[in-house]
Amino acid sequence: MKKTMVKNDINSTQNYLKNFSNNFDQILLDLIPKKKSFSDRLYEAMVYVIEVGGKRLRPVFLTEIAGILGVKKNAAIRTAASIEFIHCYSLVHDDLPAMDDDDLRRGHKTCHKKFDDATAILVGDAFQALAFEIIAEKKTHPSSKVRVELVSELSKCSGCSGMVKGQMLDLVAEKKKLNLQQILELQKLKTGELFRFSCLAGSILKEEIKYKKIFSKFSHNLGIAFQIKDDLLDIEGNENNLGKRIQKDFKKGKQTIVSITSLSEAKEMCERLTEESIRLLKPFGKKAEQLIKLTNFVISREN
Amino acid sequence: MKKTMVKNDINSTQNYLKNFSNNFDQILLDLIPKKKSFSDRLYEAMVYVIEVGGKRLRPVFLTEIAGILGVKKNAAIRTAASIEFIHCYSLVHDDLPAMDDDDLRRGHKTCHKKFDDATAILVGDAFQALAFEIIAEKKTHPSSKVRVELVSELSKCSGCSGMVKGQMLDLVAEKKKLNLQQILELQKLKTGELFRFSCLAGSILKEEIKYKKIFSKFSHNLGIAFQIKDDLLDIEGNENNLGKRIQKDFKKGKQTIVSITSLSEAKEMCERLTEESIRLLKPFGKKAEQLIKLTNFVISREN
Repeated sequence: MKKTMVKNDINSTQNYLKNFSNNFDQILLDLIPKKKSFSDRLYEAMVYVIEVGGKRLRPVFLTEIAGILGVKKNAAIRTAASIEFIHCYSLVHDDLPAMDDDDLRRGHKTCHKKFDDATAILVGDAFQALAFEIIAEKKTHPSSKVRVELVSELSKCSGCSGMVKGQMLDLVAEKKKLNLQQILELQKLKTGELFRFSCLAGSILKEEIKYKKIFSKFSHNLGIAFQIKDDLLDIEGNENNLGKRIQKDFKKGKQTIVSITSLSEAKEMCERLTEESIRLLKPFGKKAEQLIKLTNFVISREN
Repeated sequence: MKKTMVKNDINSTQNYLKNFSNNFDQILLDLIPKKKSFSDRLYEAMVYVIEVGGKRLRPVFLTEIAGILGVKKNAAIRTAASIEFIHCYSLVHDDLPAMDDDDLRRGHKTCHKKFDDATAILVGDAFQALAFEIIAEKKTHPSSKVRVELVSELSKCSGCSGMVKGQMLDLVAEKKKLNLQQILELQKLKTGELFRFSCLAGSILKEEIKYKKIFSKFSHNLGIAFQIKDDLLDIEGNENNLGKRIQKDFKKGKQTIVSITSLSEAKEMCERLTEESIRLLKPFGKKAEQLIKLTNFVISREN
């Protein structure tokens, strides 16, 4: 595999992802409970957030790895929906004026712009609860032990020892000079933990601990590579491709791996981590073909 | 039992609650994970919210009912901590400028006033995840089946089919005239659902379904009585006792049972619901003595 994906591979992976997310978005929509009441505003705002779309990268990695391990499709898809609802809630809260103050996401108004701040706060809160509700249902997996382990992992990776802590550190970093170690700690929590869950969920669903170590390492590399690429796109990306403003983080003086190294060093680090990730997939042979393409795509993507 | 509690009973129940919440607050504090990192801001803000205190009514009802059913104390306390963390997160988000815009809670600055809006959003998000993390741990109950059922109930009662939906309806109601049925629907979701969880958790922990019906009815009455009393305190309460501004809801024209009935009708309804709740506890004889006092306290309290 070349350092950069050949054009054909990028296109085919993009199509694969598009196809995946089209199907997956319908599953997400079907999982939002709709009960009659004198106002459907909460339901409508939740549906809006899903319909705006997303790359659905965490779900595609989760289902791909689960597939390699032989997990039943329905179990993987429902677990993938949970992690995506957590990701969605964090984006909706992140976009709020009190946080990143973003008015556009994927070319559409952000939730609080389309509705209002209060609705966006509640939509985020509702998506978080829904993530746990879905995992806990028997439909996800026949074993209570497996379901409760998923709840345990998801709560830890997303809460005050995981993603939320990372977001807090990110805010603190606006007023504090960080070293590389601290930036890595921040990004491991803010982005890495949800990727870690996505890459480990298959082993939990299959009750197969022997692959946990491989996928833990895999997700560690993938998470950092993904974040570097995101930061590179903020600097060099195309606003039309991205559907959001570029250089926002850069202009705010946000500290990232890219901001404290040279662009070429960051790109080199991103490629090296991707290669290491792919090397970890060797034991799975041909079964990991699609997963390797997806991993390469993380650093070749334009949005 | 008289319609109103005699002064002695009010005082002894107040002392009982004070004692309970002193012990319980320390348990809540101990459950907040503290891991070293380059900033402790999230941890500090979570601790602040707990140290401001609260009546801890949901936990006291949960542990009291669980005690009557013979549930192990540790299981009840940890489940009570979970429901209180959910309640805390909802208050922190509710107080935000985009929602109720409150600057005082129990005589102290609200979380976003003490820290900032972004921190308060993250603190709420973190408390929600922590609630699920605690329930899912083996320490809460040896049976995975029980733990996952608690997760399932907690997510439903707190999310977009429960409390969060109630909060959304509450916002919608600021611009829409409601009838009594709609006000009851709103309050059942906004307040009633967490009380329902608190009253049912004992049966789940004991794997004892025969009392579910009694405590479901009990919590229904208790929830409405509690809400009417809250609305009465907003109109007639003492700001010093309450530690927050009064007549805020009233001045905003918030629609409540009190706003569409006369004060005396609302008081009468509150007392009738409390009496009905207490009647449901008859089968438990002397074991329910403290629970009866607590139920009476709900409508006699001054804060």
